[in-house]
Amino acid sequence: MKKILLIILDGLGDRPSKDLGNKTPLQAANKKNLNYLASKGMVGLFDPISPGIRPGSDTAHLSILGYDPYKTYTGRGPFEALGLGMDLKPGDVAFRGNFATVNDNFIVVDRRAGRIDNGTDELAKSLNMKIGDVEILVKEGVEHRAAVVLRGKNLSSKITDVDPHQENASVKESKPLDEKAKLTSDLINEFTRRSYKILDSHPINIERKKSGKNPANILLVRGAGIVPELEDFNKKFNLKAACIVGVPLISGICKLAGIKPISVPGATGTLNTNMENKIKYAIENLKEFDFILMNIKATDIAGHDGNAILKKEVIERADKAFEPLLEHLDEYTIMITGDHSTPCSVKDHTGDPLPVLISTSGIRSDGIDEWNEISAAKGSLRISGKDVINVLLNYSDRAEKFGA
Amino acid sequence: MKKILLIILDGLGDRPSKDLGNKTPLQAANKKNLNYLASKGMVGLFDPISPGIRPGSDTAHLSILGYDPYKTYTGRGPFEALGLGMDLKPGDVAFRGNFATVNDNFIVVDRRAGRIDNGTDELAKSLNMKIGDVEILVKEGVEHRAAVVLRGKNLSSKITDVDPHQENASVKESKPLDEKAKLTSDLINEFTRRSYKILDSHPINIERKKSGKNPANILLVRGAGIVPELEDFNKKFNLKAACIVGVPLISGICKLAGIKPISVPGATGTLNTNMENKIKYAIENLKEFDFILMNIKATDIAGHDGNAILKKEVIERADKAFEPLLEHLDEYTIMITGDHSTPCSVKDHTGDPLPVLISTSGIRSDGIDEWNEISAAKGSLRISGKDVINVLLNYSDRAEKFGA
Repeated sequence: MKKILLIILDGLGDRPSKDLGNKTPLQAANKKNLNYLASKGMVGLFDPISPGIRPGSDTAHLSILGYDPYKTYTGRGPFEALGLGMDLKPGDVAFRGNFATVNDNFIVVDRRAGRIDNGTDELAKSLNMKIGDVEILVKEGVEHRAAVVLRGKNLSSKITDVDPHQENASVKESKPLDEKAKLTSDLINEFTRRSYKILDSHPINIERKKSGKNPANILLVRGAGIVPELEDFNKKFNLKAACIVGVPLISGICKLAGIKPISVPGATGTLNTNMENKIKYAIENLKEFDFILMNIKATDIAGHDGNAILKKEVIERADKAFEPLLEHLDEYTIMITGDHSTPCSVKDHTGDPLPVLISTSGIRSDGIDEWNEISAAKGSLRISGKDVINVLLNYSDRAEKFGA
Repeated sequence: MKKILLIILDGLGDRPSKDLGNKTPLQAANKKNLNYLASKGMVGLFDPISPGIRPGSDTAHLSILGYDPYKTYTGRGPFEALGLGMDLKPGDVAFRGNFATVNDNFIVVDRRAGRIDNGTDELAKSLNMKIGDVEILVKEGVEHRAAVVLRGKNLSSKITDVDPHQENASVKESKPLDEKAKLTSDLINEFTRRSYKILDSHPINIERKKSGKNPANILLVRGAGIVPELEDFNKKFNLKAACIVGVPLISGICKLAGIKPISVPGATGTLNTNMENKIKYAIENLKEFDFILMNIKATDIAGHDGNAILKKEVIERADKAFEPLLEHLDEYTIMITGDHSTPCSVKDHTGDPLPVLISTSGIRSDGIDEWNEISAAKGSLRISGKDVINVLLNYSDRAEKFGA
């Protein structure tokens, strides 16, 4: 049995770029280690969900880890909260929220409270409260954004939004969509009223009013979702699993799945992340763990920036960082792919398939020694998210026989 | 965002033909425009339903348009009726039917009424009637064939056939398969009796008897199916959709899906169809519509005829007709494939996968500039019917992101 290392180069897939002589960043990159790994194993194309579907990083990682995103992704609230680093538990009901400005009659004057860009950490903190037996947790996001989590018994996500989704409209009463949801809609209505009471007289807002800015005097929630109960990954696949992931959204999903986070010095989830350390810690921890999921976010950031030259450079840095893996092919089964394409020409996720490679000693080699979106199509792998862990279990000699 | 043109060369896929030096018609064809489109994009293989399934044109088009054929194809009746150009509505119950010959005791003497080949239009017309609140519509098909549609409230397809499926047997009483179906089985039994009354004394049959031919003196129905409620295609995919389709079966499905038919002068759904006009009208209408489905039937007709040389010529005619599309790759996302293979050596549909190409500016190129069943396998596409619209939405920059 081998140890499994699954490396997700976030947003790896791309389209031809004029800045790179009509090549993709992966095609243009100098990447002898990736090419070596490809040549020693199988390559192909990978659809994180299914062909053409444009995944988020959240739905893609759910799918890659063996959880059906159509069943587990119930609404954006929980994943927004995970993305802000909140510690969620199955059964929590989470919302996306906006700090907004209302007048005395609860008419929304500004849905973004003048795109408030500081002090929201304090405003959020002032809204943590308990109503009855239900705990309410609030965390600020970028600018006016926030997440709200209800934790308690008998909660439901089947309620309507408080946010009227437009200005010059009244704050809405949240309504239950079924009988069991009345507790939750009552709670969120009470929370909304209290948020106004607390925020309107908060020193930060008194200051904002003085300087002619719209006060962030209410928190309007929307997109209720229930935090899914993910079957424990370790039990589901009989793997002692860990992750090296800098992005809160993904590490949050791992946590829900029972995958242990490993913190790595210098791993930031940004462009300047220390990839050498990530690999070093992976190798160290694969002594103890059977499976490590590693996410490298920098490729995606370059894609969202539309910077193909930067993306190529990030790939080249990753390639260098991967060098120590080459001597572990007798012990490791390594898969390298991405969670979605983020073409620099689109600056956002697309549903284009991704190149994938699986490398370990003793398996078939497709004989393809230049790994990119185009050459990978000539290889033998054509898999989707739901297949990933099964394929890895197979090539690490860990799969259980189904039948006799 | 780009406009989408989906061209179905009906029955395109084939097997090697001795008449073409062991090449398929597509391999043998001179087709510079198809090759150009392929070279500018991605190619691959396509399973209309899933590998090995032998689709009808109806089930294949349902699947391609994003409707699960296993859920929407409830029986042949509705699709037979659509194929005869009848105007169906969701909830109608439709049957296939035979004009047959019975004796006075309702014993079937000839299930095909001497393969009657004229006058069935008048016979069918004489059978349109109303029983209670239910309207009954009858349309003749080829030779002795016909379709019967019941339109009204509380109808069901869960009834047994009237047709005994053999000669020298009694016409059967239709029986309800569940309680709610009794109204329908009663209706169809009453219709069968009346059909005998009307047809046996119809002038056409009196004439047939005089000249020693078997009279078409009863209409025997079978294969009850309920016309499916297809979710509106325009809403489902957020596309303003039209079709250029000469075959009633396919245009009927489009109509049920809310896809607007565009009529094109000279487009006949036969071998002599005017393909240039089809392309001209597609280009004109893509100014208004986001999506056009075009079906070219001639390839399938040549396949059913077992005429590989003709099929090659039809492909060459199509290739010429496609020339005006080449200058629209910045505006259009074009997919070309078929709905099933109709190998000339088989003269019928098979479950062999089809070559597919997607062409538009800015996407990856697989670098394959000769497009056929064999070369396509080296490309990056490997999709099935349910993926088609998702893939087209992705490559036309119209897909909504699933997740964050």
